[in-house]
Amino acid sequence: MKTVRTIAEVREALRDAPAPVGLVPTMGALHDGHIALLQRAREDCATVVMSLFVNPTQFSAGEDLAVYPRDEERDGELARRAGVDLLFAPTVAEMYPDAFATTVVVAGGLCEPLEGASRGPQHFHGVATVVTKLLNIVAPQTAYFGQKDAQQALVIRRVVRDLDIPTTIEVCPTVREYDGLARSSRNAYLNEAERRRAAGISQALRNAAAVIAAGERDSEVAVRAARTELERHEIVPEYVALVDPETLVPVEHLDAPVLIAVAAHVGRARLIDNLIATPGR
Amino acid sequence: MKTVRTIAEVREALRDAPAPVGLVPTMGALHDGHIALLQRAREDCATVVMSLFVNPTQFSAGEDLAVYPRDEERDGELARRAGVDLLFAPTVAEMYPDAFATTVVVAGGLCEPLEGASRGPQHFHGVATVVTKLLNIVAPQTAYFGQKDAQQALVIRRVVRDLDIPTTIEVCPTVREYDGLARSSRNAYLNEAERRRAAGISQALRNAAAVIAAGERDSEVAVRAARTELERHEIVPEYVALVDPETLVPVEHLDAPVLIAVAAHVGRARLIDNLIATPGR
Repeated sequence: MKTVRTIAEVREALRDAPAPVGLVPTMGALHDGHIALLQRAREDCATVVMSLFVNPTQFSAGEDLAVYPRDEERDGELARRAGVDLLFAPTVAEMYPDAFATTVVVAGGLCEPLEGASRGPQHFHGVATVVTKLLNIVAPQTAYFGQKDAQQALVIRRVVRDLDIPTTIEVCPTVREYDGLARSSRNAYLNEAERRRAAGISQALRNAAAVIAAGERDSEVAVRAARTELERHEIVPEYVALVDPETLVPVEHLDAPVLIAVAAHVGRARLIDNLIATPGR
Repeated sequence: MKTVRTIAEVREALRDAPAPVGLVPTMGALHDGHIALLQRAREDCATVVMSLFVNPTQFSAGEDLAVYPRDEERDGELARRAGVDLLFAPTVAEMYPDAFATTVVVAGGLCEPLEGASRGPQHFHGVATVVTKLLNIVAPQTAYFGQKDAQQALVIRRVVRDLDIPTTIEVCPTVREYDGLARSSRNAYLNEAERRRAAGISQALRNAAAVIAAGERDSEVAVRAARTELERHEIVPEYVALVDPETLVPVEHLDAPVLIAVAAHVGRARLIDNLIATPGR
């Protein structure tokens, strides 16, 4: 595995790299969710690139940018073991040089609800901009993202379609702990008691999905099932939402697959998770 | 020359096209300025692509979108004669499909003064977005733009740098009529008397440049020289500005090359022109 810091080095390293090229963008603090993306890329692609960049523009003031876990040595070793060919770990100045002024903005409904309402739509503009840059730098045939960040995946798919970026976006299943907790770099913020409570988030999603699968048509009933489970774990959610999996428009009457999304603070960790549920007959 | 309407056809047509590929983006209504860009592309590149698309998102309400001159047959013939290999003439629906939501926004000083103040900064957001799309669709090594649209060229250079689009932007000299009038598709709106008066714009630029070359250090004096010439042609400018050629920051004391920019309505044509002047000793 080769590690490079600059955009010019990426282009140089990929000049004669065998196609197809796959990209797994990460902010480091690798967990099994990332490893699954890397394995998928390794299966699909002749050349696997991983980016490691804690992108400041997708953090709002007061969020955890300063304390976000960073351990490049560990991440590099995990990437190497997962078969990454090229690790791109740029500085902030390399990605955002002097007089940087360009933002990729996605208007309309995709950036405003859920995470956009909680973290501000500029979170997704930061994501859209850095992903556009990474796709232009690496020019991969395929880039891999996790379903845990369902809204992010939708925003990225929209940007790639709208700006005609010639990359296929693959969204891979959420990887979970034994008790259902979605793997997340922010799980590292949890102490033991919080870690146990945090399992309530995925349990709440499963309870809501079970209600829906059992034939319930009223989304409010499913939301209540999720909220009851969260309360049992003393978790006060930022949101529990049932929305269309493509448009994120709230769903009231359940007659098609629906995205159930939850965000909640557990201790100082802000955690998100989601599930797609299919109404039973 | 092959003519195609869809993005998929462009990619198919360019799959085995010899490199380097050059792109000349146009809104049609070709004039000698466009032809000079095509000739330059033909000299530099093994494959020359011209896009022909009157981009609605860069027109503000009340501007000339509806009456903008369109004659694809003539433009296609001129492109063919200039040696274009591939003409990409998409529909609006091909470029902006349902639920299109993404805009490339350039913040800071480049979009706000001059044309941004007159036409609104969303003009440049429309330009930045469509050019990003065209560069992603064609993936040229080089794209060619005219110096007449000096501010547009700066915005595009900034977007290409900031988003790491792997294309070199070449800005080619303004092509002028015998009397100095900059070639523009909008010159077609001029009647004979207006056409004669319109030459006052480039004469005003040259008079200001002459004052600067003669050693004048006060930009106000140069602006007055330009305004006097415009008045002589009964032209009331929207702006006469002396600005830094890279940042567009207004210049008061002339001690380095300066961009002199003018916008004015002549009849129903809104015309722009500019010149870079170098202070004399």
